[in-house]
Amino acid sequence: MTTTLRVAVAGCGTVGGALLDLLAQHGPAIARRARVRYEVARVLVRDAGVPRSTSVPRALLTDDLESFLATPADIVVEAIGGLDTAEAIARHTLGRGRRLVTANKALLRASGPALAALAERHRAAGAALDFEAAVGGGVPVVRLLRESLAGHGLRGVRGVLNGTTNYLLSRLEEGATYAEALQRAQRAGFAEADPTRDVTGLDAADKIAVLAWLGFGVDPAGLEVRTAGLPAPGALERDVRRARAAGTVIRLVATATRVGDGVYARVAPKVLDAADPLARVRDEDNLILLESESCGVVSVGGKGAGGPATASAILADLLRGTDPHATLSAA
Amino acid sequence: MTTTLRVAVAGCGTVGGALLDLLAQHGPAIARRARVRYEVARVLVRDAGVPRSTSVPRALLTDDLESFLATPADIVVEAIGGLDTAEAIARHTLGRGRRLVTANKALLRASGPALAALAERHRAAGAALDFEAAVGGGVPVVRLLRESLAGHGLRGVRGVLNGTTNYLLSRLEEGATYAEALQRAQRAGFAEADPTRDVTGLDAADKIAVLAWLGFGVDPAGLEVRTAGLPAPGALERDVRRARAAGTVIRLVATATRVGDGVYARVAPKVLDAADPLARVRDEDNLILLESESCGVVSVGGKGAGGPATASAILADLLRGTDPHATLSAA
Repeated sequence: MTTTLRVAVAGCGTVGGALLDLLAQHGPAIARRARVRYEVARVLVRDAGVPRSTSVPRALLTDDLESFLATPADIVVEAIGGLDTAEAIARHTLGRGRRLVTANKALLRASGPALAALAERHRAAGAALDFEAAVGGGVPVVRLLRESLAGHGLRGVRGVLNGTTNYLLSRLEEGATYAEALQRAQRAGFAEADPTRDVTGLDAADKIAVLAWLGFGVDPAGLEVRTAGLPAPGALERDVRRARAAGTVIRLVATATRVGDGVYARVAPKVLDAADPLARVRDEDNLILLESESCGVVSVGGKGAGGPATASAILADLLRGTDPHATLSAA
Repeated sequence: MTTTLRVAVAGCGTVGGALLDLLAQHGPAIARRARVRYEVARVLVRDAGVPRSTSVPRALLTDDLESFLATPADIVVEAIGGLDTAEAIARHTLGRGRRLVTANKALLRASGPALAALAERHRAAGAALDFEAAVGGGVPVVRLLRESLAGHGLRGVRGVLNGTTNYLLSRLEEGATYAEALQRAQRAGFAEADPTRDVTGLDAADKIAVLAWLGFGVDPAGLEVRTAGLPAPGALERDVRRARAAGTVIRLVATATRVGDGVYARVAPKVLDAADPLARVRDEDNLILLESESCGVVSVGGKGAGGPATASAILADLLRGTDPHATLSAA
């Protein structure tokens, strides 16, 4: 028996568009294996008149928030980013006992615990909050922290969490100028037109705060993350050249460490020994090292930016709660 | 509100003993964060008269299978290994609508789909089958394949899946003889008294077959895994020396690749370029690379052997199904 779930998607940019493509492409296989069919019920866009390459019927597009919120849907995917509209969508969805899947790290940092409480309050009606795509792009670090590693002695989290800056650093290491590297990142879809939140470390700071919330239970809005971004282009080009000459590597490293009852969090460019696992993170990849008492260091890595990788994390959230036995017993 | 779940543990060796220690140590924190208290109801051992270091009251120990099976328990952990008794415990548990958590890759390879079907049949009564510890020790690869990556275009799995042989290879690379390396592995609890299944590749073959089941839906018992183990001690010592001199590394590599409608699976020692992520896997660590269409390569690594790491994977299974919102909204 296959269940049909209606999905409303807010945002049809890099991530939202890639999700719609992924659902169109893998929908039949998912229906067969997980016995769930995802039916796109509505797509919220900024301008419904703009032509798009995604295969969604025009009639499903709307640029009216009220009309979007009124759509009967079982799951709402929030991929528009920003705070105000995103939070309105999130509260409306959870408050009506629906599932919210979001890729929005800034929203989670600002209001994650409140949204989780709202989801818990309306759980009996079907509310749930998932956000694998908010940290690490296609790297399933959120699920690992929420389900596998929380509760038994996590000591610290350390990682490369920003795919854009890592892509820039990788190009600089190959000899590109900063301007060339940024242009390539933007063309490849790994950097936005305005990369300020990436290069200043603010994006990574939101992400490490969300991971600290998951791993240590601290309020991410209240957590101070000491944040330093990449130096100015000229200084950065010189630093990368010097690091290379010394056999070292520069990476934007985010850390959150339990210290007594508190958590110390930081984002900063670091000069790393070549043997450091984070030194080997290339291009738009992310790598997160989770250190716990009983289990040592667990590493998880993969594509940290780009539409398809991020959309596949959203798809994993959509699939959450489907019965794994349905697939396994069919072998 | 805290729920109490009664846990019966079959096996009190390296893994079972470490689980009991972990529950004693982290029980209070888990009760606080996940709102579940795990109460050890019974422990099946080979000889109830043998003195043990674990802090379990003697009265809970039994060496009688019937008495163990008759224990009222919500969850049964199977950590005795082997096939016959393990399968009897598994079927008895699932058939009565209880949760089974097992670390037994050989059992899963032989009967995984049948046990999953049994769990599905008795799901309404509460049956569930979990086995994070069966592959990768403390590395959460089972969960990733079951939940995050299945169903959207997995192409191949490639990894170091046997901690014992990797530990041996790491010691040989440092100049130890095979005999010295094996003795150290046994002392450290990474190799059993009889390491045959490890060094012949049979252990890794069971594991890659289980991963192929999870990732591709094939019957692991019917999957042929072309298997080559480590060469004889003298030849291995020489091969490792030669590889080192050439700047390469030998690792026991397991692969499963989708080819048309089928799956090609293999375990063999491979000479790897130093830049290969698997070449950097040291000591008892495991690393698994999961390649999918939409998400590129996701890597997940950590301790692949040893009591505490494996027990922490079992603990993650015990915690499965506890409400993540309970923890998150408390921030």
